[in-house]
Amino acid sequence: MSEPSYPIYAAIDLGSNSFHMLIVRSVEGSVQTIGKIKRKVRLAAGLQENGELDEAAMARGLDCLSLFAERLQDLPRKNVRIVGTAALRIATNRDVFLEKAEAILGHRIDIISGEEEAKLIYVGVAHTSGTSITKLVIDIGGASTEIVAGERFEPKIVNSLNIGCVTYKQNYFINGEINHRNFEQAIKAAQMALSGKLQPYLSFGWQACLGASGTPQALQEILIASGESEMITLEKLLKIKQAAIDCGNIDNLILPGLLEERRPVFVSGLAILIAIFQALHINYMVVAGGALREGMIYSMIPCLQQHDIRQRTLLSFIGRYQLDKEHAYRVRDTALKLFDQLELHWSLDQHDSKAILEAAAVLHEVGLAIDFKSAARHGEYILSNTAIPGFSLAQRKLLISIVRNYKDDIDLMQINQQTMTSPILAGQLTRLLRLAVLLTMRRKDEVLPHVKAISHGLDDIHLKFDDNWLAQHPLMDSELSQEHTYQAKVKWQLTFE
Amino acid sequence: MSEPSYPIYAAIDLGSNSFHMLIVRSVEGSVQTIGKIKRKVRLAAGLQENGELDEAAMARGLDCLSLFAERLQDLPRKNVRIVGTAALRIATNRDVFLEKAEAILGHRIDIISGEEEAKLIYVGVAHTSGTSITKLVIDIGGASTEIVAGERFEPKIVNSLNIGCVTYKQNYFINGEINHRNFEQAIKAAQMALSGKLQPYLSFGWQACLGASGTPQALQEILIASGESEMITLEKLLKIKQAAIDCGNIDNLILPGLLEERRPVFVSGLAILIAIFQALHINYMVVAGGALREGMIYSMIPCLQQHDIRQRTLLSFIGRYQLDKEHAYRVRDTALKLFDQLELHWSLDQHDSKAILEAAAVLHEVGLAIDFKSAARHGEYILSNTAIPGFSLAQRKLLISIVRNYKDDIDLMQINQQTMTSPILAGQLTRLLRLAVLLTMRRKDEVLPHVKAISHGLDDIHLKFDDNWLAQHPLMDSELSQEHTYQAKVKWQLTFE
Repeated sequence: MSEPSYPIYAAIDLGSNSFHMLIVRSVEGSVQTIGKIKRKVRLAAGLQENGELDEAAMARGLDCLSLFAERLQDLPRKNVRIVGTAALRIATNRDVFLEKAEAILGHRIDIISGEEEAKLIYVGVAHTSGTSITKLVIDIGGASTEIVAGERFEPKIVNSLNIGCVTYKQNYFINGEINHRNFEQAIKAAQMALSGKLQPYLSFGWQACLGASGTPQALQEILIASGESEMITLEKLLKIKQAAIDCGNIDNLILPGLLEERRPVFVSGLAILIAIFQALHINYMVVAGGALREGMIYSMIPCLQQHDIRQRTLLSFIGRYQLDKEHAYRVRDTALKLFDQLELHWSLDQHDSKAILEAAAVLHEVGLAIDFKSAARHGEYILSNTAIPGFSLAQRKLLISIVRNYKDDIDLMQINQQTMTSPILAGQLTRLLRLAVLLTMRRKDEVLPHVKAISHGLDDIHLKFDDNWLAQHPLMDSELSQEHTYQAKVKWQLTFE
Repeated sequence: MSEPSYPIYAAIDLGSNSFHMLIVRSVEGSVQTIGKIKRKVRLAAGLQENGELDEAAMARGLDCLSLFAERLQDLPRKNVRIVGTAALRIATNRDVFLEKAEAILGHRIDIISGEEEAKLIYVGVAHTSGTSITKLVIDIGGASTEIVAGERFEPKIVNSLNIGCVTYKQNYFINGEINHRNFEQAIKAAQMALSGKLQPYLSFGWQACLGASGTPQALQEILIASGESEMITLEKLLKIKQAAIDCGNIDNLILPGLLEERRPVFVSGLAILIAIFQALHINYMVVAGGALREGMIYSMIPCLQQHDIRQRTLLSFIGRYQLDKEHAYRVRDTALKLFDQLELHWSLDQHDSKAILEAAAVLHEVGLAIDFKSAARHGEYILSNTAIPGFSLAQRKLLISIVRNYKDDIDLMQINQQTMTSPILAGQLTRLLRLAVLLTMRRKDEVLPHVKAISHGLDDIHLKFDDNWLAQHPLMDSELSQEHTYQAKVKWQLTFE
């Protein structure tokens, strides 16, 4: 039997609450998930006072592993990594469990330290999220919380604290009661745990704060369901805290966007996060695209070690969707030339807008893979439903709103709904891409027109072609007239000569 | 500059009404449209009584060609084909036009005979539509109508008649009036034109009748808008004729699904089609996926000459979406094995159902290209919006309803809405794929379980594994229990031992 063309990898984490298996294929420089298995093993619940894991918890764990083993035994050893975290770190009799577990799995299990765990989480986040150089990463687990500050792909300041949303629920929200006092006690306890660890983070600083795993994810869903932007701020956390208190009890905790399965540990996670926001003076946090298991996977796959995630993402899309690479770069270069010409006049260079325009230009034809008809809409569908490592959720929305409008009728709603930047700037970037697509329509470098873009206000573009060029190119003239009509419909001015 | 990795081709047809340019890339054994330009040149309107094309019409034509030329001059000569049809066949002074036109385009123009046109249309249809061995293809143009019967990719009986929806509008629906008398005159005239040509078609016979271009397309849109199945029958044509008569005039012709731009020539095309249906005793017609320009394109691209379109389509999807080919075939083989085991008991072998199950099995993971989460829904999106040569619209819907339900919750609506076959048969095929996906979950041939499917009714499946196999495979046992729950929710019985 021949080898499959795209190798398969698996990452398993034996967590304190759940065991997870993630199975992926490495496809054209990207990670494609092909399987996920999760079982709520509740290992931590079996930790006794003497520090031993009880028989029942071990049996639950081993049962689960014999399921995982069925999938796992077919993979090459070097493509599998299995780690155990907090509950297994603590259990004094973990060797009894590990011996049986490794026999079942046929693979070695690494019990990783809190510090190793934190580092892997950082790597998982760094590979799947925005490209700010310095980052603060926070992962609130069931029994531990990891806080890591780092630069690019290197974790620099690493802590794993014994505070978690499961343990805090048991300690501070007894009988599920939610009130001011419970919240304050939980927040104070978390602040105590943090004290003495803060200074290195505050000195280091960070360009982006990213939250991994359940608590930030749930908060983002609540914010989106309430029609708010997805950036998490202390102000929003305090408002949600008050809304939770108004519910009175975890059993009655109903917030728009909050999933049933998250409900039991939501308020305890929220209390911990509030403590961290206050202690570290965090302005805002965005949700990370991956964490521990992604860190394990990305550490295993050699071709993903390249460090410019955005370029890797764009190259991967070119390969996966058979984009016309040369043309994609031609459109990008033309769009960036227009950007440079109007940059100062329009104050374009904000919020990473140049990089987003670049990505939109490279990706704009992705929908052609599905069909020429409605290609822009298909591009929107693909980009809205797929991972785009290197771009935050808000950046992605801006990117999508530009791609969605790369030709034909302009959908202003899309442009206005993205929250990354102002509708004016989003519209201006959209117009630069549309013009770049038109100017390069012959798909040849040798026949690119010499043209300069000029603007006198915020809504007008004037294209000035070299003498007589337009008269000799009636198709371009005709296409620009059509484009003038599209833009006029949304009150944008386009003139040309 | 390096060559683009996927070569570009262009087909131009200088039609009697419109000039069209189609630009495509050849990608992984499939044709990806990247550009379309159409201009309503109305060449035929410039044909004078003496058979000459007037100056104004020539000028309109040449103007249009100078637009096309701008795109065209960049393509290698062998990747371009340009044909002229009816109006240029008729024009006695066409050489004057052609000399100028070829100078503008820098390419040769072939004025093709009606017979050549008909043959190219047949090839375009054969490459883009269902795989019935013998086919009757009908294309009602502005000034001519092509009727071709053929076998596989070979046109056998070929006619091009001087009847068309534009000329018939001018002759029989004067001032736009729609009434019984006008219709009957148009139908009778068309029948006259057909007389003497019928016998060879009737003797040859056909497994599928396919309609190309505007009239059948418009009819299909009307049927879909009225909630009817998309198969065109004489009964439906007569009903729509009556509805058109009730409108009284082309200016008032409002039918659900009928596009504005089609309105002027809709009733004349309908009259011609009714005449053809009656003369050739056609039971039903489905709409073809392509016609003249597609025939030109497919004749140019060498790798598309392979003759099993369905296999070519499946291979193309495997390449374009990086499907795990080995696994796709494993799931297919397993699904077909189950099919064979239940075929007689369930009367599965109807309406090409085996080939559709095969395709669904090969394609089921196509949505993974977008994301693991909601992969089945992404697969539905891709397959609903992309060309799937080798499958008719109804077959495609059945295929999609199966892929949509390959795992997790079952959406009965999808299964009931497809019109290819009964909901029972569609549900049965869906279950075969779901079980095949489960049974092959380890993605290795060596570890496939030995299992036999048995059924006692129409709603139950019992899986009998080899002795003790299931006890040794707890993951499979657990997954089958989960599957039992999914199926029970929609009242399907699944048991196993």
